[in-house]
Amino acid sequence: MNTSEQLLPVLAAGGPGLARGLRLAEARLGEVAGAHGDVLAGHAGGTLAAGGKRLRPLLVFLCAGRTEPDERVVAAAAAVELLHMATLVHDDVLDRAPLRRGYPTVFATAGRDAAVATGDLLFSRAFAELAATGSAPAVQALSTASTALARGELMQRDDAWSADVSGERYRERCGLKTGSLFAASCRLGAELGGRGAGDALAAFGDRIGVAFQILDDVLDVSGPVEDTGKHRGTDLLDGTVTLPLIVARGRDAGLRALDLRAVATKPRDAEALCDRIAATGALDVARAEALADVAAAKRELAAIDLEPWQHEALDLVADGVVARYS
Amino acid sequence: MNTSEQLLPVLAAGGPGLARGLRLAEARLGEVAGAHGDVLAGHAGGTLAAGGKRLRPLLVFLCAGRTEPDERVVAAAAAVELLHMATLVHDDVLDRAPLRRGYPTVFATAGRDAAVATGDLLFSRAFAELAATGSAPAVQALSTASTALARGELMQRDDAWSADVSGERYRERCGLKTGSLFAASCRLGAELGGRGAGDALAAFGDRIGVAFQILDDVLDVSGPVEDTGKHRGTDLLDGTVTLPLIVARGRDAGLRALDLRAVATKPRDAEALCDRIAATGALDVARAEALADVAAAKRELAAIDLEPWQHEALDLVADGVVARYS
Repeated sequence: MNTSEQLLPVLAAGGPGLARGLRLAEARLGEVAGAHGDVLAGHAGGTLAAGGKRLRPLLVFLCAGRTEPDERVVAAAAAVELLHMATLVHDDVLDRAPLRRGYPTVFATAGRDAAVATGDLLFSRAFAELAATGSAPAVQALSTASTALARGELMQRDDAWSADVSGERYRERCGLKTGSLFAASCRLGAELGGRGAGDALAAFGDRIGVAFQILDDVLDVSGPVEDTGKHRGTDLLDGTVTLPLIVARGRDAGLRALDLRAVATKPRDAEALCDRIAATGALDVARAEALADVAAAKRELAAIDLEPWQHEALDLVADGVVARYS
Repeated sequence: MNTSEQLLPVLAAGGPGLARGLRLAEARLGEVAGAHGDVLAGHAGGTLAAGGKRLRPLLVFLCAGRTEPDERVVAAAAAVELLHMATLVHDDVLDRAPLRRGYPTVFATAGRDAAVATGDLLFSRAFAELAATGSAPAVQALSTASTALARGELMQRDDAWSADVSGERYRERCGLKTGSLFAASCRLGAELGGRGAGDALAAFGDRIGVAFQILDDVLDVSGPVEDTGKHRGTDLLDGTVTLPLIVARGRDAGLRALDLRAVATKPRDAEALCDRIAATGALDVARAEALADVAAAKRELAAIDLEPWQHEALDLVADGVVARYS
C-alpha cells in the first residue's frame, strides 16, 4: 500500500477499521498472486509491487460503511484491484510499455504471450474472489464493469488517430475505461456492506472516475514527467485522442490539420506538440471540466444518506482526484 | 450450429428439448455478439460464424438433464462457449494465427490490439451471462475453469521448446487447458439443472477433455490437413511439446537430441519431423492413452445416477471425442 500523504486524511476519517480493511485486501492480493505457481507469482508479483493508489479498494471500503472490515467486503476490494491490474497488464501489451510506475511491466519481463495469459489469470481471479462472496448482484456489477473496460479499450483503438473524435465521445470512452470500475467499486461496497444506496454511489464513482481520467490525460500533455513516470505526449504517440487535443484542435487550425501519425514517426516532436496544445489554453479547459465533474459528484454525494465519516472520507477522495491523488 | 453427422445420434438421444436448448444458446450468443456495438459484432461475429462443435454447451444441456430448456441452463451454455471463444481469440493473438476453421481470425482482420480487447469482452460477457442466473456456485465453477485455462496457457509458454517435458506434466497441462472447461460445463449443467452429481460429472468432463486434447495434438502431427484446417506440425513450430513428441523422444535418440527451435526456423522441415514422430509409433501410443481415458470416463459415467437418455447421450459424446467429433 502506497500510503501517500493525500491518503492520510482519508484514513483518519475512515478510522482504524478502514486501515485494517486495506491491509487485509493487500494481503489477499498477495495471496492470490502467490497461489498460482511461480509464473504468476513472478509476473503478478511485479504488478502488485508496482503498487498504485488502491483507489478502487478504498471506494469499496468507504461505500461499504463498516467500521470493522467484513470478509466479503475485503474480497470485493481485492476483486476490483485484480480486475484493474488485469487491464493494466493487457494495456501494457497493447502499448508495448517497458515500464509502469518505474517497474518493468510483465510485457517487458516475460513477453507478450505471458502478459496476455497473466492478464487473463488476474481477470479470472477477480471473478473468483467475488464469486466466493456468494453475491450474484456483486458478480453482475463486476462483469458489467469489465465489459465496459473492454468496450472502452475497443473504442479507443477504433478512434485511434481520428481527427474527429467529439468531446461527447471522449467522455463516453472515459466512462467506459475508468468511470465503470470506479462505479462498480462503489456499488460493490454498497451491496456487500449492506447499507444500500448502490445506484447513487455508483453515479458518484462514475463521475469522479471520468474526472480522474480527464486529469490523467491532462498530465500526459502537461507533465511533469516525475509525476507520470512516462514521457509527455505518450498518448499522442499512441494515436489516442484526448480532451486536451480535442479542445486545442478547436482553437488552433494548424493542430486541426495535423495528422497525428506524422508525430508518431517523430517522437521528438511530441514534446513540441504538447507545448502547442498547452499554448491554446486547452489544458485549463480540460482541467475545468474535470473540476466541474468533481464538484457535481460532491453535490450528489451530499444528498446520499450515509454516515458522517463516510461523507467526510468520500469527499476527501473526490478532492484527492483533483489533487491528482498519488 | 454445426450439426455434423456425429452430432445427430446425440440429438436423437437428447430429444427435441436438447435441440431447442442448443438453438436458444446459439441465439443468445448471437445477441451477445450484437449487443456491444459494431466493433464487437464484427469481431465476435466472425468468431461466432466460424462455429465449432459447441461441445461445451452440449455438455451443459446433457448434464442439466432437463427435457425442456431452462433459461438458466441456456445462460450457462452460452457462458461456457463465450469463455471458450475468448480463449480462442487470445490464443490466435499468441499464435499469430491467420485462420481458424477456415475463417480469418480477429487477430488477422482487426489486429492484435483489437483481438486482446475482444477476448476480454467475450470473457466479461461469459461472467455476465452466468451472473444473471443468480447462482454463485455457478460463477465459482466458471472462474475456477477460467483460472485453469490461463494457468494452462502460462504453463505451455513456460514449457515451450523444452526438451524435458514429462508425460505427467503434459497431462496436467491438458487438464488445465481443456479438461477444466469440459469439467465446468458438466458441473454447471448439474448445478443449474438441479439434478446434482456435479463432482462426478465434472470428473467425467475433465477426463474426456484431456482425451480430446491428446487427440487434437495427435491430429496436429498426423493430419490430414483437411480435418484440421492448418499445416501439420503447427504446434511443433510454435515450440509446444505434445504427447506424440514426448513419446517419440523416448524411442528415437535423434529426436531426443533435436532442438525444436531449429525446426521453427525452417517450417518446411515440420512435415518431415511429423513423419519421423509417426515412424516411432508414438501416434498410436498417444491415441491409446486417449482411448483409455475415454473408456475410463465411460465406466465412471455408468456409475452416476442419471436418466437413461442422459447416459446414452453422454456416452455418445464420449465416443464422439474418440471419433474426433467434428
